[in-house]
Amino acid sequence: MKKLILVSNDDGYMAKGVRELMGMLAPYGEVVAVCPHVGRSGQSMALTFDAPLRIEEVESPVAGARLYSCSGTPVDCVKVSRECVLGGRLPDLVVAGINHGSNASVNVVYSGTMGAVQEGAMWGVPAIGFSLTSHDADADFMAVRPAVDALVPKLLEEGLSEGLFINVNVPHGVAHAPMMFCRECKAHWSEEYQQYKDPMGKTFFMLAGHMVNDEPESTDTDLYALAHGRTSVVAELLDRTAPAPQVPAWLRTLASK
Amino acid sequence: MKKLILVSNDDGYMAKGVRELMGMLAPYGEVVAVCPHVGRSGQSMALTFDAPLRIEEVESPVAGARLYSCSGTPVDCVKVSRECVLGGRLPDLVVAGINHGSNASVNVVYSGTMGAVQEGAMWGVPAIGFSLTSHDADADFMAVRPAVDALVPKLLEEGLSEGLFINVNVPHGVAHAPMMFCRECKAHWSEEYQQYKDPMGKTFFMLAGHMVNDEPESTDTDLYALAHGRTSVVAELLDRTAPAPQVPAWLRTLASK
Repeated sequence: MKKLILVSNDDGYMAKGVRELMGMLAPYGEVVAVCPHVGRSGQSMALTFDAPLRIEEVESPVAGARLYSCSGTPVDCVKVSRECVLGGRLPDLVVAGINHGSNASVNVVYSGTMGAVQEGAMWGVPAIGFSLTSHDADADFMAVRPAVDALVPKLLEEGLSEGLFINVNVPHGVAHAPMMFCRECKAHWSEEYQQYKDPMGKTFFMLAGHMVNDEPESTDTDLYALAHGRTSVVAELLDRTAPAPQVPAWLRTLASK
Repeated sequence: MKKLILVSNDDGYMAKGVRELMGMLAPYGEVVAVCPHVGRSGQSMALTFDAPLRIEEVESPVAGARLYSCSGTPVDCVKVSRECVLGGRLPDLVVAGINHGSNASVNVVYSGTMGAVQEGAMWGVPAIGFSLTSHDADADFMAVRPAVDALVPKLLEEGLSEGLFINVNVPHGVAHAPMMFCRECKAHWSEEYQQYKDPMGKTFFMLAGHMVNDEPESTDTDLYALAHGRTSVVAELLDRTAPAPQVPAWLRTLASK
């Protein structure tokens, strides 16, 4: 039986990133994409339990592949697909992206695209997300193809240790960026909220800011890789329980009284 | 200077859980709560960057404490509070909850309450979430008080290793549940989508399901603790990079070519 590849994203079913990704994946299996009806960036692993979810098949940009639009979040798209689109069958691989913009470093926790990847990984199937460091709606996503061709067939053949998922970020504007296996960089968003007055004179705020690398000297991080023209490949954990040595003794002691 | 304790939740500023929590925290410092205007359960770490955020101070249920209602997600509440409510000062502790319902095991990834905790931990300050395993709007949250009294002053005195946050779940209906330091249980949601027809005859789906413990024999997990009348205390990691031994060799090799 042909391998089944479930695809999702957070930029919505109309985004160029996911449409190009479907074409790149088609040689490796049966591709079914279930994507948000509109852009749902920054939705993390948000899910919908108190509102109707609607799904409809839309015209696929790739022959032989299927594309669905769903009214929910990226996590909803993955969750609902199994029962309502795939007839209960688990896919052999979940792929999300290609995200319009970086999901490196701490962005991984806010990203709806990486939320879809984690949701897939929670089924116990290999799951990987691809992002390109450009927010341009018409960016050249072909830069991501070498990473897809290197990683996707391997994941389909070898699988992935249960409890892991993969976050791949490709630097925009670099031809044939070599891959670098690395770790999540410590970074933070330096946030500023811009203040506005609405037409009624009431105050509102909008999020602005930029990401700051908290370990600019480190050479083994995803932000280092991207800054040096490489594609970052990070393996991430689903289970976040801290290993005992990292937990202060007072906490372990107190809590076991 | 009095310790500054920032509080948030995902059940909204009207929820009994956060109002009782504010009272429990008041003896330990200056309490400022910034909570969603409406219930935002299941919002994970979703954030708002494309819509106005509005904040207004509302009547506090606790003398000397302040309470704000915010139009955003729990992560937005934490993010916006620093600049727009706290005048740039970092709190000494971020506390979220008391959540109406369990955030044990895999629930941690979907929970808006735990999203607020993680956002606080990303500032590098100690952060902890409290949940009670009851969805009753009028549940008896006093069951959580012993855990608050044991953990909050200690976190204010000793801090917490950077990169960690704490997830506390209290079993409903148990008097003086002892605390148990444990790990996140492997579990999954057995999901079913119920299918409906709207008045126009169009199909929609709604999420149903129940959580299944994938390691019912384990005695060191949060689900074990709760099932045995104990309060679960789990220390969790912010940085999810998988340790090298868990990553298959082919992935490390392939990616470093």
